[in-house]
Amino acid sequence: MPYPETAEGFVIKDYKKWSDFEKQEFKLKPFEDEDIDIAIDACGVCGSDVHSITGGWGETPLPLCVGHEVVGRAIKVGDKVKDIKVGDRVGVGAQIGADLTCQNCKADQENYCPNAIDTYGAPYPDGTIAQGGYSSHIRAHQYFTFKIPDNIETSIAAPMMCAGLTVYSPLVRLGCGPGKKVAIVGIGGLGHFAVMWASALGAEVYVISHSPGKKEDAMKMGAKHFIDSTQEEWAKPYAFTFDFILNASDMTHKFNLSQYFSTLKVMGKFHNVGMPDEPIQVMMQDFASNGCYIGTSHIGNRPEMLAMLELASKQNIKSWVEEIKISEKGCKEAVERVKKNDVHYRFTLTGFDEAFGKRA
Amino acid sequence: MPYPETAEGFVIKDYKKWSDFEKQEFKLKPFEDEDIDIAIDACGVCGSDVHSITGGWGETPLPLCVGHEVVGRAIKVGDKVKDIKVGDRVGVGAQIGADLTCQNCKADQENYCPNAIDTYGAPYPDGTIAQGGYSSHIRAHQYFTFKIPDNIETSIAAPMMCAGLTVYSPLVRLGCGPGKKVAIVGIGGLGHFAVMWASALGAEVYVISHSPGKKEDAMKMGAKHFIDSTQEEWAKPYAFTFDFILNASDMTHKFNLSQYFSTLKVMGKFHNVGMPDEPIQVMMQDFASNGCYIGTSHIGNRPEMLAMLELASKQNIKSWVEEIKISEKGCKEAVERVKKNDVHYRFTLTGFDEAFGKRA
Repeated sequence: MPYPETAEGFVIKDYKKWSDFEKQEFKLKPFEDEDIDIAIDACGVCGSDVHSITGGWGETPLPLCVGHEVVGRAIKVGDKVKDIKVGDRVGVGAQIGADLTCQNCKADQENYCPNAIDTYGAPYPDGTIAQGGYSSHIRAHQYFTFKIPDNIETSIAAPMMCAGLTVYSPLVRLGCGPGKKVAIVGIGGLGHFAVMWASALGAEVYVISHSPGKKEDAMKMGAKHFIDSTQEEWAKPYAFTFDFILNASDMTHKFNLSQYFSTLKVMGKFHNVGMPDEPIQVMMQDFASNGCYIGTSHIGNRPEMLAMLELASKQNIKSWVEEIKISEKGCKEAVERVKKNDVHYRFTLTGFDEAFGKRA
Repeated sequence: MPYPETAEGFVIKDYKKWSDFEKQEFKLKPFEDEDIDIAIDACGVCGSDVHSITGGWGETPLPLCVGHEVVGRAIKVGDKVKDIKVGDRVGVGAQIGADLTCQNCKADQENYCPNAIDTYGAPYPDGTIAQGGYSSHIRAHQYFTFKIPDNIETSIAAPMMCAGLTVYSPLVRLGCGPGKKVAIVGIGGLGHFAVMWASALGAEVYVISHSPGKKEDAMKMGAKHFIDSTQEEWAKPYAFTFDFILNASDMTHKFNLSQYFSTLKVMGKFHNVGMPDEPIQVMMQDFASNGCYIGTSHIGNRPEMLAMLELASKQNIKSWVEEIKISEKGCKEAVERVKKNDVHYRFTLTGFDEAFGKRA
């Protein structure tokens, strides 16, 4: 049963052997009027992929094909698809479904739809398990499929689909723009996008980092200031300075949070996009000296995805990616290095024709 | 050395004997041009008083006279005082000083001034320790002194000065008003004001409480709905319902916070005014299903205090107070019952003429 009933991908069959990928066929959901079939040409490697194949964020059905930073070509479009035609270069991010009728969906908050479907590991209403982009094809609803602007290369666009959007959405929702002082914590896959977007949106960007060696990179990404948080008293000069902090680190449970909080303006937000596997501990009093808040967001919505791609296109912003050819070996190397944080700053899997053959 | 060099008050000398009050003289700060001397007629008993005399919020210099919900008569006004004249009925809350020149003060955020002076237990620049309102007189800067509208009785006005403002400020900052669904957690000294203000401001008020017996009181205060949080699945019917939650409980460290969070609209806030002595633990993931936030505020600013008093005056809103005569015994009873949560819903100490004599 080859495509169009199935796709072929690199899957994990055992959480304990989380980097042992095997090439295998899996079933696609039934094709519907608003669906688009995509022949995949590139897929970013996201921290979520590692959390998922190791079972760190809870268990999903196995075998599992991860990958939710997908770029490829539309090879079949349903009768009700409006803006995408066969041959278009398109992307899919971390969400592939939602009811599109609930109060959240109607308010452009489909990323918080209670019936949202994750791009991999989640069941469709008919029971088919959605599988991700380390694969030959993906079948996606038009609402979760995005045209890639011509001047963004495929391998550069891929990591924007999850990592890019995950930081773009809170930045714009928190009012990032001219006149704002924004601190970004943690320069990695997420953080490097945060610095580039925040700077492109016109804010004055401060990077707070435990890795003084990343200063040069941070400045190239658009930061105006670099704060070395290995210095004990680093926060003192920045009391009441930042409109908000976007924290892209997933080591937040080891932070002295009241130090970070102290650098926020009154009612500023310490906004997290990194998700540690462990809880944080805070005293309510820690928020009281400036009335600040801590919280999290989950990816972003369709209008934000389109706006982000437009920003990247207009300002010619490039993800910092290393390409790895997709294969058992390539996937293994990518996820193992992501787990070790050994990447500057994002991997894109490429070479899909070699692995899966030319697709229509 | 009687007034005007000193005042006389009921003080605590030992954190271990935190309810053993003794009447004693203490020094007032030097009188300055913008100061007002107030002969005190009533003082509310605040949870903060108990946290302070037990050392629960850290130690302050002893002996300590607490009380920061002060109402009395202006008996002396400095040359530069503008809006208060001798004989006016005035109040003082939990803050008695600020630099009034910093970025926060200039932005009407003087409650977050880094040089703020608490009404008791805090040093003035000259070294004098500010002492609170369980006393004969208080000397206050005009910026922190508020005219009490004629139709609010002295003993009713007193608890508004801290408890009232502490919940009024976040309510208005969070946009409380018509069309908003607001949940108030915990009906006590703070919570009862929150229900009354939120309802007076036009919101639809839901009370979430572990004490089903408080339903009748909550409805009288203006709540439209009462949610009994002792029921295990209480949160389910309220998914994505509240614009924000104002949590007035100080038992937050025992809450199942993700349940509370689940009832917030997208990007809603779980805002705390209660301050447990213990930390809370949360997973970043707990915020992710609706992108919500948790935080805290500290009292409120001068414009909010004036607006709150005007609201209470116009809508004839009354604090629910029990009066206790001020004395060693009266103070002891009041703080011991506050510690046990045995009050509906606030004490006001009165009878100051009997304790301190008629003052000018």
